[in-house]
Amino acid sequence: MENTILEMQFALDTFYFLVMGALVMWMAAGFSMLEAGLVRSKNTAEILTKNVGLFAIACTMYMIYGYDLMYGGGVMLEGIEVVAKDATYAAPSDFYFQVVFVATAMSIVSGAVAERMKLFSFFAFAIVFTGFIYPMEGAWTWNGESVFGLFVLGDLGFSDFAGSGIVHMAGAAAALAGVIVLGARKGKYNKDGSSNAIPGANMPLATLGTFILWMGWFGFNGGSVLAMASKESANAVAMVFLNTNAAAAGGVIAALILVKLLWGKADLTMALNGALAGLVAITAGPDTPTALEATLIGAVGGVLVVFSIDILDRVFKIDDPVGAISVHGVVGLWGLLAVPLTNSGVSLSGQLAGAGTIFVWVFGTSMILWLLLKAIMGIRVSDQEESEGVDIAECGLAAYPEFTK
Amino acid sequence: MENTILEMQFALDTFYFLVMGALVMWMAAGFSMLEAGLVRSKNTAEILTKNVGLFAIACTMYMIYGYDLMYGGGVMLEGIEVVAKDATYAAPSDFYFQVVFVATAMSIVSGAVAERMKLFSFFAFAIVFTGFIYPMEGAWTWNGESVFGLFVLGDLGFSDFAGSGIVHMAGAAAALAGVIVLGARKGKYNKDGSSNAIPGANMPLATLGTFILWMGWFGFNGGSVLAMASKESANAVAMVFLNTNAAAAGGVIAALILVKLLWGKADLTMALNGALAGLVAITAGPDTPTALEATLIGAVGGVLVVFSIDILDRVFKIDDPVGAISVHGVVGLWGLLAVPLTNSGVSLSGQLAGAGTIFVWVFGTSMILWLLLKAIMGIRVSDQEESEGVDIAECGLAAYPEFTK
Amino acid sequence: MENTILEMQFALDTFYFLVMGALVMWMAAGFSMLEAGLVRSKNTAEILTKNVGLFAIACTMYMIYGYDLMYGGGVMLEGIEVVAKDATYAAPSDFYFQVVFVATAMSIVSGAVAERMKLFSFFAFAIVFTGFIYPMEGAWTWNGESVFGLFVLGDLGFSDFAGSGIVHMAGAAAALAGVIVLGARKGKYNKDGSSNAIPGANMPLATLGTFILWMGWFGFNGGSVLAMASKESANAVAMVFLNTNAAAAGGVIAALILVKLLWGKADLTMALNGALAGLVAITAGPDTPTALEATLIGAVGGVLVVFSIDILDRVFKIDDPVGAISVHGVVGLWGLLAVPLTNSGVSLSGQLAGAGTIFVWVFGTSMILWLLLKAIMGIRVSDQEESEGVDIAECGLAAYPEFTK
Repeated sequence: MENTILEMQFALDTFYFLVMGALVMWMAAGFSMLEAGLVRSKNTAEILTKNVGLFAIACTMYMIYGYDLMYGGGVMLEGIEVVAKDATYAAPSDFYFQVVFVATAMSIVSGAVAERMKLFSFFAFAIVFTGFIYPMEGAWTWNGESVFGLFVLGDLGFSDFAGSGIVHMAGAAAALAGVIVLGARKGKYNKDGSSNAIPGANMPLATLGTFILWMGWFGFNGGSVLAMASKESANAVAMVFLNTNAAAAGGVIAALILVKLLWGKADLTMALNGALAGLVAITAGPDTPTALEATLIGAVGGVLVVFSIDILDRVFKIDDPVGAISVHGVVGLWGLLAVPLTNSGVSLSGQLAGAGTIFVWVFGTSMILWLLLKAIMGIRVSDQEESEGVDIAECGLAAYPEFTK
Repeated sequence: MENTILEMQFALDTFYFLVMGALVMWMAAGFSMLEAGLVRSKNTAEILTKNVGLFAIACTMYMIYGYDLMYGGGVMLEGIEVVAKDATYAAPSDFYFQVVFVATAMSIVSGAVAERMKLFSFFAFAIVFTGFIYPMEGAWTWNGESVFGLFVLGDLGFSDFAGSGIVHMAGAAAALAGVIVLGARKGKYNKDGSSNAIPGANMPLATLGTFILWMGWFGFNGGSVLAMASKESANAVAMVFLNTNAAAAGGVIAALILVKLLWGKADLTMALNGALAGLVAITAGPDTPTALEATLIGAVGGVLVVFSIDILDRVFKIDDPVGAISVHGVVGLWGLLAVPLTNSGVSLSGQLAGAGTIFVWVFGTSMILWLLLKAIMGIRVSDQEESEGVDIAECGLAAYPEFTK
Repeated sequence: MENTILEMQFALDTFYFLVMGALVMWMAAGFSMLEAGLVRSKNTAEILTKNVGLFAIACTMYMIYGYDLMYGGGVMLEGIEVVAKDATYAAPSDFYFQVVFVATAMSIVSGAVAERMKLFSFFAFAIVFTGFIYPMEGAWTWNGESVFGLFVLGDLGFSDFAGSGIVHMAGAAAALAGVIVLGARKGKYNKDGSSNAIPGANMPLATLGTFILWMGWFGFNGGSVLAMASKESANAVAMVFLNTNAAAAGGVIAALILVKLLWGKADLTMALNGALAGLVAITAGPDTPTALEATLIGAVGGVLVVFSIDILDRVFKIDDPVGAISVHGVVGLWGLLAVPLTNSGVSLSGQLAGAGTIFVWVFGTSMILWLLLKAIMGIRVSDQEESEGVDIAECGLAAYPEFTK
């Protein structure tokens, strides 16, 4: 009898992991649509190929090597008899939930390097990032291992509930290194240092992508409670859903108002970035704020992202076509730093230590890797290929053959 | 031991609310895509901005004020310790499920006033509608409060399971008031009184939006059983899913056949409207019909929507670019009136009383609000802005900069 | 007390069926977007109409007749009092889960016959396919009935977990018969026998469709465990999710690498077909392989689909605009044959017997039906209608009126 109740808990927790994981998997479609909407039509097929390919690479590399590196065990190459050992939920459901996080981190990179990178160099980067770079920092954080035997982040008061830093800022750090090595798109910056706006080709697609990400984020944050089948965990998951939604709403409103005040009009892409910024901001600690606090944390994210996109572009000449470094990196850092405001078990110094560790590791290893790839196989298409569009050069087909010349 | 079973029930009901709520949230994407597909390309970015913005406003206003007004308690500004008091499921999951309904009601308005309204006037309307107008009628219906101390709708035999009237007809009533105050789009009606069809720019987007809404509706109706963790409620939820799907199918088939008979060809937009009409029609009572009855209720909705769109346009000169008033208003009323056919606990007079109360309240307050907004800040863009498209005027960007001139 | 635990199991299994079913329903959107992206803009509104219409027809025909033919009982025309008899989950949830499979099978047909078929002839085919042809072979396989009293497939060692053969190859067999009767599109093949590529109009749409199908497939395969509320079934569902994802990833990687080696570039449509091929391949047996084996089964599917599409087109002159016959038919067969590799309870001879039975039945009856429809109402539009696009001829509207001439 008691056994049956335990079985039911096992089943409900497993089902919860699978449903949350399916929502996170869905974020891969969100990133694809967002990025495809924000680039020019001549580079759209390539960014779609990149997103489909990176998801497949992430799933395969994490299965073969990354999961074992991050959590140990490596049972993923065994059949169900072996993986069924786990006591409180099915082991494959844990892997399924974890693997879609790896893909999310990698998706962040693809937008920032859009419109000028070689496709297979990107895939080569994805292999190392998803199989090694991400799992290493994942082991230090979520698995609690010591950083090269020097210190344990959790002991310093570091906490990152669902990955503002571990997933989002990590993806942005890899993207930043890539953008620096790659350089800006042709025609982005003028000789006088001024910057040209390069509008995306398909705003409905970008909006769809944002809504998909918003929906998928309920799985991303909600699933990170890691349990459902008790009153305490059910309350926590519900609060996380509510706060995730509230933060996204706050980010939209803040970005809309700020842009209206700054530039006199609404701006759709900034509203979308505001939503994503709100979501990134709350991800480090969606369990402890009230709904109002979550709205405000998201709103600060929405303000930050507007200024960050503008400053990275105009001042630092970081050419990030989709604003990924601002959305996931700058706001990811804000998310980490906001946790101590509502969670007394977390310290600002711990958050800074964690943010620093993640950034140094991911940025450093990514920089080395991008430079190696540049030396070995090249990472940038030729000027002519860039001007014709990478779709022709890398994919041999057009995304919208009948709509554009 | 018993405690553990109660905890499991609590957890399963909470999880059910959250999954259903995520599906309803997803309807926001459905409305966005549907409306973006049905307007012209020069007004697409603005309608996307409107949809993202209204969702954020709805979530925030309902948190701050609307939920408290509708259901009392106002615990949403408190943290999880306070909101965890509820006994049968987590309180935040109830809020999460309710808040996405507010956004749905507001989404209905945005399509009807498309292509000529000022963006921030619309947002101002959204603030009052989601914070006050909708919660008031929600309190009279789902919360059972008396209407200004005069009568209690439930006592009169009124029932609206998931909101054919409370959500859909309410949204349509607000939209109708807006369209009347706003007037038709330039070029819609000729001097001789005839009407010009203004085709939408992107049919795949409209179709995607319809499928998203169809999927999300399983959460909308299925979640309105408000419980899952017993044999009785599980049967009810399953029946609601089945009937919701059957009614949508009936709506599509009826609209397809009717249009073929009337005009000699199939019509995609009418097939989509048929699906939505079937869904709206069944929403007032998806628990009591058999699947065949549900199909027929949806089919009548599909017939009604075709005639209603035609008559509102040609006879009444109501310029509703996406047909929202017909789909959600006329068919919403049909949904209310159909409930007594399969549910003996509901009376036709009660349904009429409820429909009348909702319509008078929402149409009346909305009319006052639109007129106030018109006087204070204006609600319509200038003729030149309308002719150039509201994307440029209100958002400063184009939705498809490379596909159109 | 025990009763309460049984009720909880009933509720959890019902909820699981409904959530999985909603994911499968979502595949209807996936097929619509995939097919709409892969045809030319002048035939896009018609294929969208076809997909919305066939889903509605499938749901209605299976309710009226097909479910009863396949599983007996026919309770779907009764109300909830009757259907609530079932002991381990709610009967309507079973119907809901089954009906979306019928629609999936029918969706496969619509892409293959795109760009030249009469819309209402297609709907007539859909009525018979979903009400009779599919339910008959479904009864022989999943319901274990004897094939015309001759033999029982299960006794021969046949097993098809979620329908590589019963759903996917069956859809492809019906499509193949249709394409043969219909003939190739004008301009597809030259007099010298060479073939012209006809690019699809909207690659982001095709990519979105693939991601939707990928997500929906978790419901398709995961739901086919048919139970969740025990440790054993929870482990099985989790393993199925993991393997379904792994196989899709394997299909993408194999197709990407193969095409790069063959043609020197990546090919987005082949990457998408690779994902779908991986999913089709694992569908016959997603419960027994390890994740690595699932990846390899999917990868073989990804290789097969590239060669199959090329050979069917160039060698056999089978004009299948979306590659459905290769993805669902050829790879569906591979999926069936791969099951004995990891499942000792299944025999190769049984799989061949099952594949042969399904193919002969579906191809044969479909061929007769297509020929009958050709004789009675015609199945192909006129040359002029085909050249102008079937959107004008069959639907009277354009899918993208502002983007193309």
